[in-house]
Amino acid sequence: MWTSLSSLNEGAEDISQACINALFLCVSLFRLKDLEVAELRDSDVHVKMLAAPINPADINMIQGTYAILSPLPAVGGNEGVGEVLEVGRRVTALKPGDWVIPAAAGVGTWRTQGVFPEEMLLKVPSDIPVLCAATLSVNPCTAYRMLADFETLAPGDSVIQNAANSGVGQAVIQIAKASGIKTINVVRDRPDLPKLVERLMALGADHVITEEMLRKPEMKDIFKSIPKPRLALNCVGGKSTTEMLRHLQPKGTMVTYGGMAKQPVMVPVSTFIFRDVRLRGFWMTQWKKDHAQDQESLTSMMDALCQLIRRGQLTAPACTEVPLQDYKAALEATMKPFASSKQILLF
Amino acid sequence: MWTSLSSLNEGAEDISQACINALFLCVSLFRLKDLEVAELRDSDVHVKMLAAPINPADINMIQGTYAILSPLPAVGGNEGVGEVLEVGRRVTALKPGDWVIPAAAGVGTWRTQGVFPEEMLLKVPSDIPVLCAATLSVNPCTAYRMLADFETLAPGDSVIQNAANSGVGQAVIQIAKASGIKTINVVRDRPDLPKLVERLMALGADHVITEEMLRKPEMKDIFKSIPKPRLALNCVGGKSTTEMLRHLQPKGTMVTYGGMAKQPVMVPVSTFIFRDVRLRGFWMTQWKKDHAQDQESLTSMMDALCQLIRRGQLTAPACTEVPLQDYKAALEATMKPFASSKQILLF
Repeated sequence: MWTSLSSLNEGAEDISQACINALFLCVSLFRLKDLEVAELRDSDVHVKMLAAPINPADINMIQGTYAILSPLPAVGGNEGVGEVLEVGRRVTALKPGDWVIPAAAGVGTWRTQGVFPEEMLLKVPSDIPVLCAATLSVNPCTAYRMLADFETLAPGDSVIQNAANSGVGQAVIQIAKASGIKTINVVRDRPDLPKLVERLMALGADHVITEEMLRKPEMKDIFKSIPKPRLALNCVGGKSTTEMLRHLQPKGTMVTYGGMAKQPVMVPVSTFIFRDVRLRGFWMTQWKKDHAQDQESLTSMMDALCQLIRRGQLTAPACTEVPLQDYKAALEATMKPFASSKQILLF
Repeated sequence: MWTSLSSLNEGAEDISQACINALFLCVSLFRLKDLEVAELRDSDVHVKMLAAPINPADINMIQGTYAILSPLPAVGGNEGVGEVLEVGRRVTALKPGDWVIPAAAGVGTWRTQGVFPEEMLLKVPSDIPVLCAATLSVNPCTAYRMLADFETLAPGDSVIQNAANSGVGQAVIQIAKASGIKTINVVRDRPDLPKLVERLMALGADHVITEEMLRKPEMKDIFKSIPKPRLALNCVGGKSTTEMLRHLQPKGTMVTYGGMAKQPVMVPVSTFIFRDVRLRGFWMTQWKKDHAQDQESLTSMMDALCQLIRRGQLTAPACTEVPLQDYKAALEATMKPFASSKQILLF
């Protein structure tokens, strides 16, 4: 028997817009269920989950506002780390005791145990902190790829990003810092701003500014000590994005990977014509699909990230550890505005 | 003595926004002047102008809404063809009788004669129609580069463009047709729509639709016979662009080269994240600057375009020929909405 946090098949598909009300609907759509552990076939792996985060995208999937919708009822969660208990007789790359994370989205990680086909799992070293392993497969990978795949950045170059306090944002700060790349980090103004600034600076941020600051002439002062960014990372949309774009170098690239403001990206045509700025998008789920046969890219990224973790240069985001049975509070906390701590389910 | 159409140095810099009033201001800022022909230095070329178009960008330059602003007073016009009368003793690539066009923007082509440094001119064959030569250096080049430089298109592939009736739009239709590439052409609804549709179809357009059509389910019918476009060319901005983007293939590219609607490009974040659509910009003036030392790219483009012209596959846009002294009417006609004929000054 195993326990899973599943979403019901009634009502979930009707929720098309994210709003505060949706949070409560959402929470009420989940329940803990005891299920039989599936039979272990030759290519399967029996995994005991150790920890799994609740990411905003997990909630969007339930709300139907994400591009992936699992057939319902479904086990929630797309990220997490587990320990291998038993492997089918054709499984050679994994053995009991190994740590594994999901190779793609949609496996359903909010459960105490599961039986998965081997190709749905990816081995990770077990000498890294469990919270790092549980939060490795989405945010740090997204940050790593966006820093690597769009512009060739050298030490001393700079990057600007909004939503700098998000899981991806914190990973960007740390990975960039380890490579000598300067970061300009945009956050929303809030009551405890100085505390947030301090925390991001401690992670390695070079500049932390509010969205209002983006419009001010004082921005010029920043570019006295560092070059204008060739790369902008956008998780917001709307005005925030338009303002951020104004600081990008000509021929620079802005990569959109989220839309927290629920507003479109708006770009003056002159930005394209006279400044030759390039706009792209990134989605880790698609990257994994596109690189499913390219184990080398995946392995070299994972090796690089685990190396940063071992050196203390890449830490897990601020986390709140929650026992599975307290999932309601954890889901609600994830949906709160200005949530600055990631909820991690422990099993 | 030569005559030029010059803009005055009073007032022009105050006009920052394009509006209908600006047209009249604009016209009143121009006057015909008789000037001395400059001395012919060793590397100079004395040119007798044959024909020069009035392009919307020429007007924008006077209004101050373009990224280039010539020091005033200045001779207007950025495009045209002239015949070489005399060359300085160090000039070897040009001789009297050759036809030349401007190598870059800002030379001032609205004049009967001029003396220019050799590097500001580009030789073109004199066996093509004079109206083709006069309108070669901006619109057909822009169309050629946008079709060549952003996506690798093969015969049978498709392209979607708005402002399909513009000079660039017409060149896109013809160059694409000659390469076996299908075009979906978006135009604004207008009283004489059937006539316009007929004219663009005669040029080789595969589909001509209105902006309203972009939103309709009937769009699906188009994609029964041709694939969804991998390339979109945007000269409008605003809603038109957002609607056009919906028909682009995943991983396709939209290139913005104009903003006739005077509204920003608006893109839902999902277009970037889940469809991996890429947004770029293009400006022929910048391309010429970037390729000033790359004669091979320039020559091969000019050869290809002149070859299309000789074969009758690339014609001059619909033109109205105007004697220089009637410039006021020509400037006014250029600024009229739905102008479907290019004004060409003859000298």
